[in-house]
Amino acid sequence: MSKSSDPPVVLLHRPASLNFMDELLTRNFQIVKTHTSSDPIPNSLSSQAALARGFVNIGLLPVTEELLSKLPSLQIIVLTSVGVDHIDLAACKRRGVVVTNAGDAFSEDVADTAVGLLISVLRRIPAADRYVRSGNWVDSGDFILGSKVSGKRVGIVGLGSIGSHVARRLEPFGCIISYHSRSQKPDTTFRYYPDILSLAAENEVLVLCCSLTDKTRHIVNREVMESLGKDGVIINVGRGGLIDEKEMVKCLVQGVIGGAGLDVFEKEPVVPEELIGLDNIVLSPHSAMATAGSLNNVGEVAFANLKAFFSNQPLISPVQLD
Amino acid sequence: MSKSSDPPVVLLHRPASLNFMDELLTRNFQIVKTHTSSDPIPNSLSSQAALARGFVNIGLLPVTEELLSKLPSLQIIVLTSVGVDHIDLAACKRRGVVVTNAGDAFSEDVADTAVGLLISVLRRIPAADRYVRSGNWVDSGDFILGSKVSGKRVGIVGLGSIGSHVARRLEPFGCIISYHSRSQKPDTTFRYYPDILSLAAENEVLVLCCSLTDKTRHIVNREVMESLGKDGVIINVGRGGLIDEKEMVKCLVQGVIGGAGLDVFEKEPVVPEELIGLDNIVLSPHSAMATAGSLNNVGEVAFANLKAFFSNQPLISPVQLD
Repeated sequence: MSKSSDPPVVLLHRPASLNFMDELLTRNFQIVKTHTSSDPIPNSLSSQAALARGFVNIGLLPVTEELLSKLPSLQIIVLTSVGVDHIDLAACKRRGVVVTNAGDAFSEDVADTAVGLLISVLRRIPAADRYVRSGNWVDSGDFILGSKVSGKRVGIVGLGSIGSHVARRLEPFGCIISYHSRSQKPDTTFRYYPDILSLAAENEVLVLCCSLTDKTRHIVNREVMESLGKDGVIINVGRGGLIDEKEMVKCLVQGVIGGAGLDVFEKEPVVPEELIGLDNIVLSPHSAMATAGSLNNVGEVAFANLKAFFSNQPLISPVQLD
Repeated sequence: MSKSSDPPVVLLHRPASLNFMDELLTRNFQIVKTHTSSDPIPNSLSSQAALARGFVNIGLLPVTEELLSKLPSLQIIVLTSVGVDHIDLAACKRRGVVVTNAGDAFSEDVADTAVGLLISVLRRIPAADRYVRSGNWVDSGDFILGSKVSGKRVGIVGLGSIGSHVARRLEPFGCIISYHSRSQKPDTTFRYYPDILSLAAENEVLVLCCSLTDKTRHIVNREVMESLGKDGVIINVGRGGLIDEKEMVKCLVQGVIGGAGLDVFEKEPVVPEELIGLDNIVLSPHSAMATAGSLNNVGEVAFANLKAFFSNQPLISPVQLD
């Protein structure tokens, strides 16, 4: 049994390669590590897990009612993601478990990736790279003709921390920014669209930066894509589930929209096979936030949340549970 | 023989795919088209070419003393490039031939590509795209870890129209901008470095935006790359000859520098074979300016220069011949 003066027991679940918090956590808590299987609580760990008051969940492992039932001492879940769609927040609330996320730790890097994907799709950078590497430049001597970034009308879906960073970065490109979100933001002069359909109709690029909720699931459906039109481009750095992926694949193949830059997918790491051969898209393995600097940031935020919780201080980046 | 009231004879040389000026030129001048061979004046054209008062040179065909000698009536060369390193300007001056270039028509698109290449190299966007398409994401499930764009110290070589657009675009990323150019610019607060070696030493990224001249040839040599260092990245949207390409290949292979985003090469379209397999570089087939919008812009500028010349009006974008 642990004594009350002992450091709290904290369960740590993480992908094999993401060891950036190991040392800091081990120095400050009694860490119980899961294996990096899809089941975070193997039988061998059950007795220790039952003592865990904290749970650091690095990555996107779903936290279900069932998992929570194996963690009867749990008081706080510390996430290293911004999105919380993999967490049963209602169940957490019922059990009195608080949840923290990455806060703004990733915002800049995700915004950088969004802009990078946008330029990459419009100016066909990975296609150009393939063209040169394959030797086609020497053989055909032709150009890779892209679409202008300057002056593009860009509609941002979700003008939170990430969306605002994207907007700020695109302004000096001469892009014309507008946005859709739950409510109009008082502190911006960008044009607001109360519905995504008209945002899509009046813009040439959509950048998805919102969180995935029951209300935003498949917010980009066939109708939105038809409205965006054949030269339209979708950039998704939010969650795969924001787009009806099956319809998007059809729209890309049929030329209903012009292209896409996708960091997220509905069934990661599985990417629809039809996308693999398409030249008008850029694919990225949910790495919009993945820089060494960002992992340091998020490690600090996650640790600060744990520290704060166990010393009865205000949390750094609490998630609203209702 | 042509009468003096006839529209002037204009020689047109262009790559097969770049027909964006054909119609406009044909409507306004007596156009003599070369074939798109490397020799712009086949024997069959010689008699007509001898009458040409204008020469629209789309692409990068070298204009040598020898070529000029076949064009005894020539008064103006209209280029669609910004760079003029393929033109023997001294020979033009001796013969009283004026030269115009693309002016600022390409600046925004080239700057967009420079920023796109910078994000693509640091955040490894084409590498990520290859990773997903190859199925490796499913197999290894690992991250593609990039280097942060936000906060990077970026040194711009050549703060003209393109360089200034690059600087303006990178500022909201939180990049710290400084520059090297022939002389300090009075209208900017960016830090100025009178020599490129110290610019390289104190920055993490070099963006080459200057023109290729006798003074800038191989301005990025081994010493500069050593000074930039093992995490340093070079972006080149200027001309291939700005870099000692042979040394750059060694530096990339040996890890003397960290990566590169290259739109231009010393012997285009030939790219050094050693580069093809490298994962830390992004290659592009001299297409930084290649958008439909840009070609329209440059077509307008080129046509306006011709029109102005033959109506004794001031040229839009004359090239200094000394």
